[in-house]
Amino acid sequence: MLRRGFQMAVILGHHGTLPGATHLLPRFNPASAFGSSTESLVSRFCQEMTKTKNYALPNASWGPDMLSLYHEFLEKTKTDGWVRVPSFRSNRDHIRGFKLPLELSANSDKSDWRLFTRCIEREGQGFEYVIFFQPSEKKSVCLFQPGPCLEGVPGFAHGGSLAALIDETFSKTACLSGEGLLTLNFNIRFKNLIPLGSLAVLNVNVEKIEDQKMYLSCVTQSRDQQTVYAKASGTFLQMQLEEESSQQ
Amino acid sequence: MLRRGFQMAVILGHHGTLPGATHLLPRFNPASAFGSSTESLVSRFCQEMTKTKNYALPNASWGPDMLSLYHEFLEKTKTDGWVRVPSFRSNRDHIRGFKLPLELSANSDKSDWRLFTRCIEREGQGFEYVIFFQPSEKKSVCLFQPGPCLEGVPGFAHGGSLAALIDETFSKTACLSGEGLLTLNFNIRFKNLIPLGSLAVLNVNVEKIEDQKMYLSCVTQSRDQQTVYAKASGTFLQMQLEEESSQQ
Repeated sequence: MLRRGFQMAVILGHHGTLPGATHLLPRFNPASAFGSSTESLVSRFCQEMTKTKNYALPNASWGPDMLSLYHEFLEKTKTDGWVRVPSFRSNRDHIRGFKLPLELSANSDKSDWRLFTRCIEREGQGFEYVIFFQPSEKKSVCLFQPGPCLEGVPGFAHGGSLAALIDETFSKTACLSGEGLLTLNFNIRFKNLIPLGSLAVLNVNVEKIEDQKMYLSCVTQSRDQQTVYAKASGTFLQMQLEEESSQQ
Repeated sequence: MLRRGFQMAVILGHHGTLPGATHLLPRFNPASAFGSSTESLVSRFCQEMTKTKNYALPNASWGPDMLSLYHEFLEKTKTDGWVRVPSFRSNRDHIRGFKLPLELSANSDKSDWRLFTRCIEREGQGFEYVIFFQPSEKKSVCLFQPGPCLEGVPGFAHGGSLAALIDETFSKTACLSGEGLLTLNFNIRFKNLIPLGSLAVLNVNVEKIEDQKMYLSCVTQSRDQQTVYAKASGTFLQMQLEEESSQQ
C-alpha cells in the first residue's frame, strides 16, 4: 500500500484523499482551490489544435442518425452556447500546457499511448463519438455509434464499452464543469442492449458539487427517447491542474 | 420502447424481465431452468479449439509478474481443479453450437466483430489478460496487464478499461457458474490508479444466486495485495442457451 498510497497522496495533492485511504492529509480549503470559472475551463480545454487530429469530427462511417444529430448540435454551438468538445489521441494533448499534481514515471519514455475510448484507429470499428457541452447548465450530450469491435452479446455493444464511454463523458464534463478529474465511483444499470452500428445518446448532468466531489448522472437512450439503454451515476474528485510553466 | 422492448422480451425468454422494464412475462419456474451443473458448463464452454486463436496464452508482451503468476495458476489447473478459461475473438466462438434466445438481425452479415476486451489485435497494446476459474468455489482470478492504448490519466489505465474487464470477468464467471449471461447492474469504487504495463489481479467471487440473479464481487489489487486498485460488484441475469441443433 505504501508505494501506491504515496503516489495517490501526490495525486490528491493537498486537497483530500480517496474514501477508504489511510492517508491523513490537510483539510480542503475551498477558498484556495477550484477558482476557475466554467468559461475559463472551456476556453482552456476546448481549443481546436490544427496540428493535432480531432477525432470528434464526422467521418465516412457515421450513419445518417449520428450525422443529422451532430449537425443539430453544431447549430446549437452557434445559437445556444453549446460547445463541441475536441477529442484527441491522448489526455496529454487535452491538458497541454498543464500537468496533474502527480509524479509520472511509468511509461514516460513511450509514445504509443492512446486515450482508451480512442484506442481503435480504424474509422467505424470502435468508439465513434462526439461530446457537446453546455457550460451554463453544466450538462453534456454524447452521440455514440458503437462499431463491431465493441461487441459483447453477439450483435450488441459490450456493457463495458458503454460503461467506459459514460465514464469518459463524465470525465470531460466534470473537468469542464469545475476541475473534476478523478473518478471515485461509478454505477450503471442496464435496461436494453445497444445494437452495434446504431446511435445511442448519452445525456449527462452535473447534479451537485459538494466537498470537492462532483456528482454526475447519465441516461443513455435512443434518439427518439423511446428506448432507455442504461442509467448511470458517478462521483469525481476535484483537483487543480498546475500550469507547466510555473513549475519549470 | 416498443421495438427494443420487444427484443428484450425475446432475450429474456420466459424467465423474467429487466428491473424497471414494463413487460409482463411469465414468472420464473426454477424447476425448469438452469439445470446445468458447473462441471457441464465448464466442459461446454472451456474447450480449446485448435482452429480458433486463444488470446489467453502468454505472448512476448507479458511482463515477468504476469508470466510467473500465470504459471502458478497453470500449476493449479493440474492439482487444485482450476480451469484456464479460453478467450476467443468473439462470444460467437465461445457459445459455438448454442444460441441466445434472441433474434439477431443487427450486423448478421458482418464478420468483423470482436469481443470488446479483445478489440486491440497488437500484442501488449491493449487488454492483456487471462482468466482462471475455480468451479467448486465459483470464483475466478483474472491477471490483467493494461497496455498503452488503455490510457486515462497519463501513464495509468483508464477507469473505464478496468470497469470493462471486470464486467467481462464477471460475465465469464457468471456464465460458467450457472448461466448468468446478461449484466443488470455494475458498481465500482476506485482506490488507486493502475500504472500502464504493470500487473493487476482481479479476484472475483459469486456471492449468491437468488431468483434468477447472480451477485458477484471483485477486488482488484497488486500481486502482493498491498495496493487495492478498485472494488466492484455486479448482478447478472440467468438465461438458458439453446442448442442450435434443436432449433434447426
